[in-house]
Amino acid sequence: MSSRSRRGKVGGRQAKRAARQQRPADLVAFIERKIPYVEILDAEALELIEHNAETVLEEIGIDFKDFPRALDLFREAGADVDGERVRFPRGMCRQIIQASAPSEYTQHARNPARSVIIGGDRSVFVPAYGSPFVRDLDRGRRYATLEDFRNFVRLTYMSPGLHHSGGTVCEPVDIPVNKRHFDMVYSHIKYSDKPFMGSVTAPERAQDTIDMVKLVFGDAFVEENTVLTSLINANSPMTYDATMLGAATVYAEHNQATVISPFLLAGAMSPVTVAGTVTQILAEALAGMAYVQLVRPGAPVVFGTFAAAVSMQSGAPTFGTPEPSLILYAAAALARRLGVPFRSGGGLCASKIPDAQAAYESANTLQTAVLAGVNFMLHTAGWLEGGLTMGYEKFILDVDQASILAILLGGIDLSPNGQALDALREVGPGAHFLGASHTQKNFERAFYRSIVADNNSFEQWEQEGSLDAAKRANAIWKSMLEDYAPPPLDAAIDEALTEFMDRRKSEFADRDY
Amino acid sequence: MSSRSRRGKVGGRQAKRAARQQRPADLVAFIERKIPYVEILDAEALELIEHNAETVLEEIGIDFKDFPRALDLFREAGADVDGERVRFPRGMCRQIIQASAPSEYTQHARNPARSVIIGGDRSVFVPAYGSPFVRDLDRGRRYATLEDFRNFVRLTYMSPGLHHSGGTVCEPVDIPVNKRHFDMVYSHIKYSDKPFMGSVTAPERAQDTIDMVKLVFGDAFVEENTVLTSLINANSPMTYDATMLGAATVYAEHNQATVISPFLLAGAMSPVTVAGTVTQILAEALAGMAYVQLVRPGAPVVFGTFAAAVSMQSGAPTFGTPEPSLILYAAAALARRLGVPFRSGGGLCASKIPDAQAAYESANTLQTAVLAGVNFMLHTAGWLEGGLTMGYEKFILDVDQASILAILLGGIDLSPNGQALDALREVGPGAHFLGASHTQKNFERAFYRSIVADNNSFEQWEQEGSLDAAKRANAIWKSMLEDYAPPPLDAAIDEALTEFMDRRKSEFADRDY
Repeated sequence: MSSRSRRGKVGGRQAKRAARQQRPADLVAFIERKIPYVEILDAEALELIEHNAETVLEEIGIDFKDFPRALDLFREAGADVDGERVRFPRGMCRQIIQASAPSEYTQHARNPARSVIIGGDRSVFVPAYGSPFVRDLDRGRRYATLEDFRNFVRLTYMSPGLHHSGGTVCEPVDIPVNKRHFDMVYSHIKYSDKPFMGSVTAPERAQDTIDMVKLVFGDAFVEENTVLTSLINANSPMTYDATMLGAATVYAEHNQATVISPFLLAGAMSPVTVAGTVTQILAEALAGMAYVQLVRPGAPVVFGTFAAAVSMQSGAPTFGTPEPSLILYAAAALARRLGVPFRSGGGLCASKIPDAQAAYESANTLQTAVLAGVNFMLHTAGWLEGGLTMGYEKFILDVDQASILAILLGGIDLSPNGQALDALREVGPGAHFLGASHTQKNFERAFYRSIVADNNSFEQWEQEGSLDAAKRANAIWKSMLEDYAPPPLDAAIDEALTEFMDRRKSEFADRDY
Repeated sequence: MSSRSRRGKVGGRQAKRAARQQRPADLVAFIERKIPYVEILDAEALELIEHNAETVLEEIGIDFKDFPRALDLFREAGADVDGERVRFPRGMCRQIIQASAPSEYTQHARNPARSVIIGGDRSVFVPAYGSPFVRDLDRGRRYATLEDFRNFVRLTYMSPGLHHSGGTVCEPVDIPVNKRHFDMVYSHIKYSDKPFMGSVTAPERAQDTIDMVKLVFGDAFVEENTVLTSLINANSPMTYDATMLGAATVYAEHNQATVISPFLLAGAMSPVTVAGTVTQILAEALAGMAYVQLVRPGAPVVFGTFAAAVSMQSGAPTFGTPEPSLILYAAAALARRLGVPFRSGGGLCASKIPDAQAAYESANTLQTAVLAGVNFMLHTAGWLEGGLTMGYEKFILDVDQASILAILLGGIDLSPNGQALDALREVGPGAHFLGASHTQKNFERAFYRSIVADNNSFEQWEQEGSLDAAKRANAIWKSMLEDYAPPPLDAAIDEALTEFMDRRKSEFADRDY
């Protein structure tokens, strides 16, 4: 059976189920942006930062640790390699990237209706990534398990505001570290049909991920298309390590996408100013993306950015503050000028619980990312406590925001129906529009309906138990999990995946690193 | 004593006290915007809405109820007056406004260091307005009193994120309706030195406000300058009533500023689409502002917008949703094209308590207003429950956001120090920036420090009682009120104001309307 016919069959059944579960208009695989990008800096200012980033690459250089292949490739390409330090002639990284990196790419899902385009005027919203803990109102904070992982895959599958199943939506701490990736990849395939991310914690785990997706999509399809987008963090400042480079290499060799992400807490891992931090981000991202293009020209790369500011009092990371927003606006503009897709978070916050702090901080980051022009928004939903905790209630609150942002990106309908002159003529001064024929015709889809906001009167809200938003979200995720039905998965694929996992897991001992 | 020397003396003492209370950099009277405006619509789209608004004014018209003076003025200016319905030749209102309305104006505070410029690239943040209830964690929801009113004036005075003392920060329900305005105006003068708003609930109350500010600033100063900015709501759709027109007339005659605000719940008081609602807002604002210019050419007017969407399920107002954000972006752009200052909210929300719903909704509206280009942001802080309740904790949470937004509007420092190339050179790959000389030189003012966010570790947060943001805000407002010291007020002025109030209050009986 060819990968195409296999995918077609699975997709057909899934589409039917999805149609039953969701309203037709919710079935968008990704967002097509219809509003302009918000630009904070003008071209001259962006050129200054680009110039400074080239100065960093030329004078200071980037360390590529314990990974001779990167040194060899850069040396061959014309860089100055001194030990593990690589210095780049001005413009070299940019030229390498612009010569071959695609400005956008399709990440195929096993359900073709869920395939996403990453880049250009599209936005793809992805759940949070990497938390060792989970939290809910009933059980509080605890280590995440595989069942939690599956739950977040299920919730993401059911959330029209999220387009992508993500990667390590939480760490399944009950599974040995060196075998978790099998269960994570399998769970994304089994419990969802949205696209997902691969393992990056070791090159061999990246290879296992590739082997597993080949069982789903077929060998040839994977080598010629992109079915994974995986997260490669730089070790800021100005360093890439062997683990990340190894995983990036495996994915690039198989034409799979990587998000090359400077990950920094400004003030500790970058200068204590916005412009200095943006300069470093650009330099690091350029070097990392150039490496990927040298491994396999044309392999999709995404310009990643994760920037928080440290508290200068305690050294703790802070979120939702203005400086990371300014960094994000600038970084998004630099990615557009470079011509590659852009990634940033998301619903970031330092709060331990889904309270007002969490919401202000998350909303500030979500608004900024979306307005700046994020293509791949990691950490859209669930993030708490600087990423240490994935919150069930927080997840629900955030996916509600994700749906709000999708409508914002859709802009203003200027059709004659949108202009509504007939309604204004029909109603006139002093009357109300509720019964107008234009209102009747449009009210069903007129305004966004929050899944979690309470807009009732104080008295009614009090009568219903004076619930805060987190308590309402608690009821929602439980009800969603009760209603969950998995997307169909071809039994032969399921069996092949299980067989592969069992065999591979038996080939080496459990390990906690 | 001339008004100028009187104001100079008071200002001098206050400046000294303020300098003791606040860090020097916090002492900004208003925000100078250094980032571009966020434009959602292009010129062609904005022209279409302007064209449609002129169609509304020409074909449908605006009702001016029970207020013959408006009908007379518009008739003389060339409008078609049919009963109380006024229809305007295309472009007439726009021409009247553009002929005389200032694009910006100074609203003088009794402390000259607190005077604000409203319009152009400035933003002035103002507390919430009009709630009959207040809420705090200790006492819950209850009717507001004059002491609550004074408390919010005090808290606003002490909040560097707010530039203006506002107007009816809450309704002092313990004072008869027809005498409240004396106590409100007096409290703004007595307990703060920031600029404030006047009474609009009856023309004679507007006149009392004028009489009181003349006791502070002097007669001549008031007639030639603007010391009040007051809120005139339209009775949407397409109607102005005698109360609001009466107050607007009094203020305009004395050269005092008015915010002409279509106040509407889209779907009920305007069409159920964004473009239709924006069209109506523009038509209503044009007619209202033109009226003010006919009363006194040159009297400052602000283009106001308050738009929420009604829930099409329950009819309740909703906040923080995408459609009102789109409305706000469009309205701000239309105000800029017209050439007058723009007002919008603010930290709007439907939530009854300062929970995650309140924060998401407020942040969405705050971000939008600021990015769109708000000049006078009413309802910046304290708003709960669709404006029915002023929240003590919510106020603290919101003023923290106001400070964040001020920094965002300041843009990116591209000075050599901001570029931080020296820091990048000093630290280099793999090291950290905490000890770098650039960091040491800049860390004190490097990143925004939230007054209410908890960025500590989970363990430390737990040890300190697992407080949510609202509980921390509770401690903050109490501590602020304990630390409060009033700005000095010339004893002669204080006496004159008290005498005036006592006399006027004795001239008529208490009334509950």
